[in-house]
Amino acid sequence: MTSEDKQGPNRIRLGMVGGGKGAFIGGVHRIAARIDDRFALVAGALDADPEEARSFAVSIGIAPERAYADYKAMFEAEAKREDGIQAVAIVTPNFLHYPVAKAALEAGIHVICEKPMTTSLDDAKALAELVKTSGKNLFLTHTYTGYPMVRQAREMVASGAIGPLRQVQVEYAQDWLAAPEEDPEAAGANWRNDPAKAGQGGAIGDIGTHAYNLAAFVAGEEPRELLAELTALVPGRKVDDDAMVLMRYASGAKGALWASQVVAGNGNNLSLRIYGATGGLEWWQEKPEELWYTPLGEPRRLLRRNGVEATASAVAGSRIPAAHPEGYLEAFANLYKDAADILSGSTAECLVPDANDGVRGLSFISACLTSSQKGGVWVALD
Amino acid sequence: MTSEDKQGPNRIRLGMVGGGKGAFIGGVHRIAARIDDRFALVAGALDADPEEARSFAVSIGIAPERAYADYKAMFEAEAKREDGIQAVAIVTPNFLHYPVAKAALEAGIHVICEKPMTTSLDDAKALAELVKTSGKNLFLTHTYTGYPMVRQAREMVASGAIGPLRQVQVEYAQDWLAAPEEDPEAAGANWRNDPAKAGQGGAIGDIGTHAYNLAAFVAGEEPRELLAELTALVPGRKVDDDAMVLMRYASGAKGALWASQVVAGNGNNLSLRIYGATGGLEWWQEKPEELWYTPLGEPRRLLRRNGVEATASAVAGSRIPAAHPEGYLEAFANLYKDAADILSGSTAECLVPDANDGVRGLSFISACLTSSQKGGVWVALD
Amino acid sequence: MTSEDKQGPNRIRLGMVGGGKGAFIGGVHRIAARIDDRFALVAGALDADPEEARSFAVSIGIAPERAYADYKAMFEAEAKREDGIQAVAIVTPNFLHYPVAKAALEAGIHVICEKPMTTSLDDAKALAELVKTSGKNLFLTHTYTGYPMVRQAREMVASGAIGPLRQVQVEYAQDWLAAPEEDPEAAGANWRNDPAKAGQGGAIGDIGTHAYNLAAFVAGEEPRELLAELTALVPGRKVDDDAMVLMRYASGAKGALWASQVVAGNGNNLSLRIYGATGGLEWWQEKPEELWYTPLGEPRRLLRRNGVEATASAVAGSRIPAAHPEGYLEAFANLYKDAADILSGSTAECLVPDANDGVRGLSFISACLTSSQKGGVWVALD
Amino acid sequence: MTSEDKQGPNRIRLGMVGGGKGAFIGGVHRIAARIDDRFALVAGALDADPEEARSFAVSIGIAPERAYADYKAMFEAEAKREDGIQAVAIVTPNFLHYPVAKAALEAGIHVICEKPMTTSLDDAKALAELVKTSGKNLFLTHTYTGYPMVRQAREMVASGAIGPLRQVQVEYAQDWLAAPEEDPEAAGANWRNDPAKAGQGGAIGDIGTHAYNLAAFVAGEEPRELLAELTALVPGRKVDDDAMVLMRYASGAKGALWASQVVAGNGNNLSLRIYGATGGLEWWQEKPEELWYTPLGEPRRLLRRNGVEATASAVAGSRIPAAHPEGYLEAFANLYKDAADILSGSTAECLVPDANDGVRGLSFISACLTSSQKGGVWVALD
Repeated sequence: MTSEDKQGPNRIRLGMVGGGKGAFIGGVHRIAARIDDRFALVAGALDADPEEARSFAVSIGIAPERAYADYKAMFEAEAKREDGIQAVAIVTPNFLHYPVAKAALEAGIHVICEKPMTTSLDDAKALAELVKTSGKNLFLTHTYTGYPMVRQAREMVASGAIGPLRQVQVEYAQDWLAAPEEDPEAAGANWRNDPAKAGQGGAIGDIGTHAYNLAAFVAGEEPRELLAELTALVPGRKVDDDAMVLMRYASGAKGALWASQVVAGNGNNLSLRIYGATGGLEWWQEKPEELWYTPLGEPRRLLRRNGVEATASAVAGSRIPAAHPEGYLEAFANLYKDAADILSGSTAECLVPDANDGVRGLSFISACLTSSQKGGVWVALD
Repeated sequence: MTSEDKQGPNRIRLGMVGGGKGAFIGGVHRIAARIDDRFALVAGALDADPEEARSFAVSIGIAPERAYADYKAMFEAEAKREDGIQAVAIVTPNFLHYPVAKAALEAGIHVICEKPMTTSLDDAKALAELVKTSGKNLFLTHTYTGYPMVRQAREMVASGAIGPLRQVQVEYAQDWLAAPEEDPEAAGANWRNDPAKAGQGGAIGDIGTHAYNLAAFVAGEEPRELLAELTALVPGRKVDDDAMVLMRYASGAKGALWASQVVAGNGNNLSLRIYGATGGLEWWQEKPEELWYTPLGEPRRLLRRNGVEATASAVAGSRIPAAHPEGYLEAFANLYKDAADILSGSTAECLVPDANDGVRGLSFISACLTSSQKGGVWVALD
Repeated sequence: MTSEDKQGPNRIRLGMVGGGKGAFIGGVHRIAARIDDRFALVAGALDADPEEARSFAVSIGIAPERAYADYKAMFEAEAKREDGIQAVAIVTPNFLHYPVAKAALEAGIHVICEKPMTTSLDDAKALAELVKTSGKNLFLTHTYTGYPMVRQAREMVASGAIGPLRQVQVEYAQDWLAAPEEDPEAAGANWRNDPAKAGQGGAIGDIGTHAYNLAAFVAGEEPRELLAELTALVPGRKVDDDAMVLMRYASGAKGALWASQVVAGNGNNLSLRIYGATGGLEWWQEKPEELWYTPLGEPRRLLRRNGVEATASAVAGSRIPAAHPEGYLEAFANLYKDAADILSGSTAECLVPDANDGVRGLSFISACLTSSQKGGVWVALD
Repeated sequence: MTSEDKQGPNRIRLGMVGGGKGAFIGGVHRIAARIDDRFALVAGALDADPEEARSFAVSIGIAPERAYADYKAMFEAEAKREDGIQAVAIVTPNFLHYPVAKAALEAGIHVICEKPMTTSLDDAKALAELVKTSGKNLFLTHTYTGYPMVRQAREMVASGAIGPLRQVQVEYAQDWLAAPEEDPEAAGANWRNDPAKAGQGGAIGDIGTHAYNLAAFVAGEEPRELLAELTALVPGRKVDDDAMVLMRYASGAKGALWASQVVAGNGNNLSLRIYGATGGLEWWQEKPEELWYTPLGEPRRLLRRNGVEATASAVAGSRIPAAHPEGYLEAFANLYKDAADILSGSTAECLVPDANDGVRGLSFISACLTSSQKGGVWVALD
């Protein structure tokens, strides 16, 4: 289980951009950063409104002088402090990821960034280049890679448990945008439906990239070609809310990805089923503690987090024994914990997606948009 | 529940072609025909080997003089008897469906035929034409349409329970052909891998058509265009063992179909998930008694066969109370029972697929082959 | 899979007592007898009303002269025919099981009898004695022992798969008697609530015996002592509708049985969980194709009917491949098929419960009533 | 969702007794206290070994001068500080709960205590009395009451969703003590098997009390009488590892509780099924996000945390949207969050079990021991 050895006294000093009062993902980042006690949130530019930004930051325990009106001010001021922030979490709408991350890296601050990394492939490439030259880290919070059973699946695939890859079926189905008049309560629905703020893709960018990243993370391969059919199934929507993608891998394997935000009865129904010549693995995000493993010709086995047959990465990503459910927040916390290890000098392989994964995500979105705009044709992935 | 009123004394006289000793689907047809006691199996040409044909027929209770060496002899001799067969079940390898069905119809005998109806679209059209001119019936045994919860789903979609169609996700995943050297025990594996006997499609014809038929049966709509990626994932296989298909409906709805026979851990994993603007329905063949229904904005509901909220067709297709599981054989028996009703003069809507559905199935296979051979492009469905 | 070798020509001639128009269990017996084609239903006394008895019998294909007004007339007349019935299915209300079975055995006719075998322990013992002296068979249709996965569980326990017995948890929960005013549509509810017709126990006799029999069938052991708490949870009910039983086995193992007909949301929720020193097995009737097996220290395995790791009895009790669901009617048909084997001279072990099991069932009911009437105390089982 | 309003600046100063390096439950308390940022862990006596206690405390960020050798020293020293601890978490072996809690209350410090509250009923009563006279709070960390769907179930029962209570079925099944030679890795196995440290009950005290508390929490009623059969199923064990309990409620309702630590295939399989005259609710700890609700005569509904039909307490106990799984640590954090509310002056109903619940838990254990020692007889609950 997770060691507590590295906690407490040597917390990494963290700033945050975005994540104001009531913002879903900002609160998630804060909890995730606290769970393993490896970060101290000491500065923030939490809201586009400077007054809101300040008062909310203070209300959650940030010192008034480090509750900033905007990220530029924060990076500038913090750079001058001896105890300035070492890393920043970027939890803004998508279009701000790039400028904020760029500014942070230029200020010598590590970045923990929400996906998609940028809203254009060019920006993504530029940012990846900047990461390289800056010598700083960029961690991309593809939450689902933090689940222990996802990491176990990756490890099992890599070690040959299913043999050479055959088929990848990945899905991400939701229904929170299914109603014709979107629920005004649904936080973020507004900017997500605005290409200027969210990027050109709708469902493909918001959740399709998660699905794509999950499949690549576990498979250890990315497709060479894809074909996408993007649709706005709800009349009047400006961006796609449903995306079907077919994939061809260099190895001859095939795959399909489906992302939809408008199919009734689906909450956050991300799943991955991956099959090779000698076995199969199946995982559902809504039951994240379970990984189904079938070696060809044997019965289906139910593997559980931190239980029998758990792999090293699954054990390392667990805090409590099998059958005491961990969930989304712990998966997220694993990203923070691993980032802390790296920032503290660990040279172990880092399982948290990075800027290169961010570029791949934008390549994927870009290829899907191209394919769909051309009428649903096969296109190469960079 | 199923009435026993029509049983017994007035059984329909049935012949059978194919279904010799050890043949899976022949035995299934015989059980299905017996369950509701509406048919009497009185004649058969059960095996390509005349001697086997005779001895096996006698062993299962067919009178020696009606145990025929081949179907032509059977149709000729039975036509001369006053108590000759009224219907014939065709359970041969695919390439014989057409000539046998043709001969039966020409002899004035109703046909109960395994799918796919023929091995070419032209044959299918010719047969459908012959059905029309002969005045006889052809019932196509797409088993899965016989499940009460599938019929309930169809009825619910038709009555507006999910609103205008948005997304159709249908899958049929198996693993019985996953091993590189196919299991010689697996009945029928041989002829299924031979395009001359099975038709050109592999998985797309064997199980893809079932999936396609299921989706169309429930949706009440067929796609206008499709795109198929057919692959032989097992090295050396002559026909596809994996098929991914995207579909566009005239209404603007979208869909995807996946059929694979090589994905470890999948037994007979046929499922349909169908979503409209105001709800969703989900069904899995391996748990056929359950239909998940979610009206948009309400909790998921578990509907059970012959239980609360059962529709008329689901009740009519049930023999026993909810929670006493019925299965595949009862679904199959529903096809026979409904055929018996029609052959006994019922003028109610017949839920059993017919020759027109057979044509649609061949159109689907044909379009998939065309699309795939052209490199995975969109093609129109007839 | 089930061989068809023994079908057809040599069908066993079957009569039936009870099972008139609309009776649930009579129809089930008729279907079960047909599925494998080993019986021919040629005579019947199907209804307490002589006119109804005759007309319904004829309507389902019984010859008019063999459609009897009562069982005494049937046994007398059939005994005189060369082609008289060889066996009789008794599907009457409980209180008639004993006199009809007695008369049948005395007339030299084998008996296939619904449970509970009688309504008193004394009658049960007398009947078991009569079976012995008559040289005829009595088959007791505890349906659930016919499920292949139940038989597999029994075989696995016997072969040491779970080690020495520790804990038996068996439950049978329903809700069809939950409403204060019972649904008049619920067939049989009336006589079931009348101790004169159903016997003294309510839920304990109607479903508790099924649960008890299932546990004993799989465990291969019966408890030595038990303690019962029987309750009528619905005000005004004359018999128990809820029964909680604790059990002590001679080996030191413990167990609990719960039977209830008044718990909302439960259809026919019979389950057995049985644990030994080295493993556990779990089965739910509503998902009868699945048996969960956990060898201690290994992952949970999902065993499927006729699939990987199927035992001989599970294969023998299967008609179709794994993942093509069989259900309640096929389980029932297995009882008829096995009875046919025995009646045709097989000397293999018969898995169908017999008169001794019937005695044990009545001993169980009797002990439960005694325990409960004394205020819930431990009593010995005979 | 959980408001962040009260976080941060006004954290409650917390000490801890027990929970040294590698201790499972101590680490859980620390995470739970951090998740919502309402507590600051500032002092500790974390280990029986003074040196270990100090070094581990410092390693997790406690100031050296507040890393105490034992709890007495801690309470004494902290009482003298202006910024002394306001509350203490007690996570020691069971036999220390009482003396430590007593000392804390006497020092004017609020208590957050692991269950069982004490190892004897007398101690429990004394402690409850002391809580009353001290004016301080005692929170008993029955984790499972912190799950939002458990709280929703309680709220639904209280508001009449299932009508008058009929049946309570509660189970807590594990297998971590199933092996004859207990796994030495299994933390805590040693002291749990020693009546001097754990109290006289084995499974009944360790997990039976959790199950009992869960049932009482949701039902809103406690039984009047019970009967217990406690067994050491693993040869040589000094305390029970399996407990079967029957319960009678004053209202006429009945119930059964089963707790076992030796049944293969069960991880942490706590479940509650509760039925009333007009509905039923079912919940499984291993899938804690789901609550099954069946109003009598309607289909089963799957209710999800923070989803459709969520009640006020379920929403209040949620941090993230439905279908983003929360788990055990979040349930635990809810206890800490609610405790913080009360300690901060809230006068809302507190859902966290208190000293009276602790007394009830010891009454339950005591009654079970008495019943079992007398041979399994009915005994009254205080």
